[in-house]
Amino acid sequence: MAIDLTPTARARRVAEATRRLVRERILPLENEHAGDITAAGGDSFRATIQQYSRDAGVFAPHAPVEYGGLGMDMRDRAPVFEEAGYSVFGPAALNIAAPDEGNIHMLAHIASAEQKVRFLAPLCRGEVRSAFAMTEPPPGAGADPAALATTAARVPGGWRIDGAKQFITGADGAGFFIIMARTAGAPGDRGGATMFLAPAEAAGIRVGRHIPTIDRSMVGGHCEVTFDGLQLPDDAVLGEVDEGYRYAQVRLGPARMTHVMRWLGSARRAHDIALDYSAGRRLFGRRLGDLGMAQKMIADNEIDLAATRALLLTACADLDAGDLGATSTSIAKVYGAEAIDRVIDRSIQLCGGMGVSEDLPLSRLQREVRPFRIYDGPSEVHRWSIAKRAVRRAVQAREEESR
Amino acid sequence: MAIDLTPTARARRVAEATRRLVRERILPLENEHAGDITAAGGDSFRATIQQYSRDAGVFAPHAPVEYGGLGMDMRDRAPVFEEAGYSVFGPAALNIAAPDEGNIHMLAHIASAEQKVRFLAPLCRGEVRSAFAMTEPPPGAGADPAALATTAARVPGGWRIDGAKQFITGADGAGFFIIMARTAGAPGDRGGATMFLAPAEAAGIRVGRHIPTIDRSMVGGHCEVTFDGLQLPDDAVLGEVDEGYRYAQVRLGPARMTHVMRWLGSARRAHDIALDYSAGRRLFGRRLGDLGMAQKMIADNEIDLAATRALLLTACADLDAGDLGATSTSIAKVYGAEAIDRVIDRSIQLCGGMGVSEDLPLSRLQREVRPFRIYDGPSEVHRWSIAKRAVRRAVQAREEESR
Amino acid sequence: MAIDLTPTARARRVAEATRRLVRERILPLENEHAGDITAAGGDSFRATIQQYSRDAGVFAPHAPVEYGGLGMDMRDRAPVFEEAGYSVFGPAALNIAAPDEGNIHMLAHIASAEQKVRFLAPLCRGEVRSAFAMTEPPPGAGADPAALATTAARVPGGWRIDGAKQFITGADGAGFFIIMARTAGAPGDRGGATMFLAPAEAAGIRVGRHIPTIDRSMVGGHCEVTFDGLQLPDDAVLGEVDEGYRYAQVRLGPARMTHVMRWLGSARRAHDIALDYSAGRRLFGRRLGDLGMAQKMIADNEIDLAATRALLLTACADLDAGDLGATSTSIAKVYGAEAIDRVIDRSIQLCGGMGVSEDLPLSRLQREVRPFRIYDGPSEVHRWSIAKRAVRRAVQAREEESR
Amino acid sequence: MAIDLTPTARARRVAEATRRLVRERILPLENEHAGDITAAGGDSFRATIQQYSRDAGVFAPHAPVEYGGLGMDMRDRAPVFEEAGYSVFGPAALNIAAPDEGNIHMLAHIASAEQKVRFLAPLCRGEVRSAFAMTEPPPGAGADPAALATTAARVPGGWRIDGAKQFITGADGAGFFIIMARTAGAPGDRGGATMFLAPAEAAGIRVGRHIPTIDRSMVGGHCEVTFDGLQLPDDAVLGEVDEGYRYAQVRLGPARMTHVMRWLGSARRAHDIALDYSAGRRLFGRRLGDLGMAQKMIADNEIDLAATRALLLTACADLDAGDLGATSTSIAKVYGAEAIDRVIDRSIQLCGGMGVSEDLPLSRLQREVRPFRIYDGPSEVHRWSIAKRAVRRAVQAREEESR
Repeated sequence: MAIDLTPTARARRVAEATRRLVRERILPLENEHAGDITAAGGDSFRATIQQYSRDAGVFAPHAPVEYGGLGMDMRDRAPVFEEAGYSVFGPAALNIAAPDEGNIHMLAHIASAEQKVRFLAPLCRGEVRSAFAMTEPPPGAGADPAALATTAARVPGGWRIDGAKQFITGADGAGFFIIMARTAGAPGDRGGATMFLAPAEAAGIRVGRHIPTIDRSMVGGHCEVTFDGLQLPDDAVLGEVDEGYRYAQVRLGPARMTHVMRWLGSARRAHDIALDYSAGRRLFGRRLGDLGMAQKMIADNEIDLAATRALLLTACADLDAGDLGATSTSIAKVYGAEAIDRVIDRSIQLCGGMGVSEDLPLSRLQREVRPFRIYDGPSEVHRWSIAKRAVRRAVQAREEESR
Repeated sequence: MAIDLTPTARARRVAEATRRLVRERILPLENEHAGDITAAGGDSFRATIQQYSRDAGVFAPHAPVEYGGLGMDMRDRAPVFEEAGYSVFGPAALNIAAPDEGNIHMLAHIASAEQKVRFLAPLCRGEVRSAFAMTEPPPGAGADPAALATTAARVPGGWRIDGAKQFITGADGAGFFIIMARTAGAPGDRGGATMFLAPAEAAGIRVGRHIPTIDRSMVGGHCEVTFDGLQLPDDAVLGEVDEGYRYAQVRLGPARMTHVMRWLGSARRAHDIALDYSAGRRLFGRRLGDLGMAQKMIADNEIDLAATRALLLTACADLDAGDLGATSTSIAKVYGAEAIDRVIDRSIQLCGGMGVSEDLPLSRLQREVRPFRIYDGPSEVHRWSIAKRAVRRAVQAREEESR
Repeated sequence: MAIDLTPTARARRVAEATRRLVRERILPLENEHAGDITAAGGDSFRATIQQYSRDAGVFAPHAPVEYGGLGMDMRDRAPVFEEAGYSVFGPAALNIAAPDEGNIHMLAHIASAEQKVRFLAPLCRGEVRSAFAMTEPPPGAGADPAALATTAARVPGGWRIDGAKQFITGADGAGFFIIMARTAGAPGDRGGATMFLAPAEAAGIRVGRHIPTIDRSMVGGHCEVTFDGLQLPDDAVLGEVDEGYRYAQVRLGPARMTHVMRWLGSARRAHDIALDYSAGRRLFGRRLGDLGMAQKMIADNEIDLAATRALLLTACADLDAGDLGATSTSIAKVYGAEAIDRVIDRSIQLCGGMGVSEDLPLSRLQREVRPFRIYDGPSEVHRWSIAKRAVRRAVQAREEESR
Repeated sequence: MAIDLTPTARARRVAEATRRLVRERILPLENEHAGDITAAGGDSFRATIQQYSRDAGVFAPHAPVEYGGLGMDMRDRAPVFEEAGYSVFGPAALNIAAPDEGNIHMLAHIASAEQKVRFLAPLCRGEVRSAFAMTEPPPGAGADPAALATTAARVPGGWRIDGAKQFITGADGAGFFIIMARTAGAPGDRGGATMFLAPAEAAGIRVGRHIPTIDRSMVGGHCEVTFDGLQLPDDAVLGEVDEGYRYAQVRLGPARMTHVMRWLGSARRAHDIALDYSAGRRLFGRRLGDLGMAQKMIADNEIDLAATRALLLTACADLDAGDLGATSTSIAKVYGAEAIDRVIDRSIQLCGGMGVSEDLPLSRLQREVRPFRIYDGPSEVHRWSIAKRAVRRAVQAREEESR
């Protein structure tokens, strides 16, 4: 059961090619689309940069080989995704942006052969985008998944889905939706949930406004979506009926980690910018980077980056070994989301007035990463579940001892 | 030498009137101008809300009575400015926004009778805005004031000023500039600096681009300004020649504290929004505000707000007693700037997805306050000067003992 | 309702006299008793240093004038207690150590004339010590006062008290006990509690072992105490039957604040030691205190000391104005306890190897203050109550709005 | 160059055997020697528990196989040392306590065949202890190694060593010393240093007092040592003359990491105690471990333990690959030392009054680990060197670009 955390030689080659691609072709384009709220330049820009990525041989590193991907495991994805995340558009270029990346991962594990042909294949090729419709407006599913309020009711020949969703990333322009709906129980008790695959053009799907979140790099935005009498056939069910919560776990652990990989790249970029500034700026007759308080911030950045990467790889090893990684991915997610935010904040501080101006991309990077302490489970919910497992172990140990 | 920190009854009345003004007339207008980069709705909007403020009897609380102000000391300003700061436009409405507020304070202390009539009087009435031109592009004056590179050279009948400034708040549309220029020594040694008063229309003043900082509420932006052969007569000198650094201290201590007052209002607003959300949102079958990790964030907000206010009042007492308050204002500034940022960040976290959406004003408030950890002296520079004074005391004590 | 936070001229004189007393007479004695677990040199040492304090005119500053004290209010106590706390034995010298100091405060407010003569008067004079018997072993009263399990039952001519207490400071050698016992309801619901005054020699009081806590400076230790059929007459009731929880509030708020005052003195001493070390030690060719990372720690110490003092005075103003200060004393207690611990920890770090050796008193000071984050209500319980009040306000505001 | 972070099957077996040994035989003995300042029960106790360890087949896991050890690399040591560190006496039992463990590591790399027979072999067998004499009293070598003041001067037939050392762990009762002395240059410039091997009985070595540090578990204490005309033959030189600083690096990186391994075990023990307490204690009608603020502390402990372990293994991989690991061991040391202290502090807080009593071993564990933020290079010095390397990279990148 040896677990090798070193990326393979191939992964190192792909990471290096991604590094060059990002620096040479993606970063120069980034500023052109800085303020675009319909996000990241939209789909035609996305098609352009995806072609760059195909040319560089780094497209879809996570997708199954039979669908044109590089078939990388989590450990190998880590350095590649980190390099892609160096630009806020890098993930779109490699077709590894949320939510498509996580959807590809889940469909590869769960979808039927037919569903793979219809939904997974074009998604891997970048021909369509997808959305994962789980989060709901209060008091529905969010930090507490058991609050799921959207329902899927049996109707002749299939299902009828009704409910409201929000913060549905990439919904505007998505080719299809993966929908989480309640098929047993009532909101508040866990009951049963089922996942459905629905083409965007199905009657009964309405994509509403883009919620104006502070991050801007997701193509298709974070949208409100309504299902109003959406009718789906039986073969729209993804996997088994009532197994939705379990499948969500298959998606959520890896999706958390790929988020960490990408934002880790953003944090490293901020740190690089601050280092370069610290190397060039003189203050009080000395180089800024030689002043003790600046050195403290620089060292804390290095520590935070190293710890994030180390926790990430530990969790990837769990996932690659077939474990759900419930605790290790929660730990890497909480630590990573908070550390990444700290790194960018310190980088801003190091750059002084320039740090809070948009002449440097630092404040933009911070806007992109701040929500990650909330998306994919707020830090508090992950801490709660980490603690619950630890206390449960201790309670069991006490019970065993008292027997 | 009794120091009474309680605001007077008049200050409490003015604060309460400001509270009502902000809630009833200013906040409803705030969102209309949320994204305006030329800032805060511009001058005509400013004129409108200043009239509201005159109607409410709370205009220019800090300005001398002979120029139509309420003549309040620092202690009395604190609760009034905090109420004004509850809206990002409140300070403009009361004519207590930076940099005018600090300029009024300094001119009232230093300007000649003639200068007061020409520059201070219209500024107090809100007829013109002003700018304080001290900060320069690297390697000039910034965190290190001794790096001052703009020069004022003696010419027949006056002075000739040359140099570049940046981050000059309110420069675009200002009626006049207070200019800090070197009149002795060379950049890097302290030498001597002098302040000059210059009408905006003087030949040789060029207001350049708005630096696109993340904060947006300052009317007139943060601009690049160039002085190119600007000729000024002798009576343009503010106070004495070569005394500019000393006058800057007169301005900087109070200006730091009024910044804290205003942003403290913003932080309290964020906390109020998060409290309201915590009171109404239910999660895991309980009220969000009753969950332990939410309670921790709420309590830490209350502690940070209370500590900021307590340190602020301590520093105000020093200033009102005629002390420069070098240490107490540095302490209140560092603690306040960091605490205010933490309060807003926790408020965002408490509101979850809503917290990072612009449906709530939290992220906007954070953009406004983040730069304050850098403006008016970065936290690191204030810590450095606090420590320097403490170590100097200890060195002197050792020397006395060893005698 | 002007609140003047400046200590009176008398308080400043007494503080200065205390400063000299501590430096000249108490500190030199401190090390002789450093490791004594029966604590602080015991009662004969205490009598000696109390005489020094009488000679200096600073004895019992908080006690009523009619009982030989100086009758100071909370605001005036602050600087005096802080000076006393500079030595771990200073509070015992001034007769302002816990729990006597808090007991004097409470008895002065609540005791009958007869009880004052019998219990308060000798306590003020330092002739006896006292103990406050509230905390119980789990699952009894502690962080949750409503868990009170010790009972007082009506018997002919008085009351019979049964129960176990722990962490009873000063119990070993105390002249009398103030006992909190349940007179209504059952553990877990609040019900009613009553306070009783019992001479130590009463049959049925058993003082058990000293709990070996890490702090050592409390004369009489932190003991286990058992009440086993303790019979007390009716006039042993302190105040009214069933009003014990309310009286506890009278004691707890001020007692929290005097703890902050004393430990603030300890923290300042640690900071002074570290400053002196930083002024004298050279490292990498420079003075330690001129290195940036040392400056950061020094400045953070100054900020923590200033913020603790400012919050303390704010709470004292509330208490002197007759308010219970529930929130302001909780805030000052939480912030103060944590800040004091941080200050001493940073001081240790600044002194390097010397910092963790007992050649300097820093590690001893840390042992004394660490428990304060737990005693008098753990930080978590105070945060919980601060948050509960804030959320209650928000809930009420929502309810009013929805009417 | 695949780096496998998973311990081998053998390491897992040895770790499990160590776990049982510690729980069954070492922990029961621990309290008997809690307060012993000559430390850890002294040498006869050490001999006893080392025999237990031999019986369990876990003795000297790091020592070369030819000297009776298990020959484990850094990666395999990690889980074994962590289990040993669960008790403060575990490391002595396995013969992996500082400084012997680091001395064995260094001698195995550098000593001549003859030196190995004479010094390394008996050390591996536990027959003698050793000391590493590098740190000096101010202004000598400490945080700044270049301040080295002890001199070794050429004399006929060998060397003469003079100087004072302090904080020499294990000096009292050591069989031999490894001495760092200056052989070129002057204090303050780097110059050259040489390591010497000296039997304890050599004339001119004087072991002075035990510095009364807060940690107590090191057999032989932390002593003052003086070399006064110590004469050593040529073959006492360890490795090459003037190469002492380089050899110190060979020792310091791994020694830092084994410290982290051992204290990580202590931190895990504290966390286990707090978890058990949280599982059993009820408060406010609920299990302590189910209260949100307790859950936050528990989760943060889990995160800190996981991050320490992940950074440790990353650094071990560097060391096993033959790299000096200058940055990765500094990062793991700083993060680990601070995280371990935090974990124990939170554990104390969770246990309330019990946490600060010596009825639980928590406060003792904290005393043991606190100095590690200072020993082996204070956190500030490691941060300084981490930052220096990062800034140097950035400066070089700028220079390359500007060419």
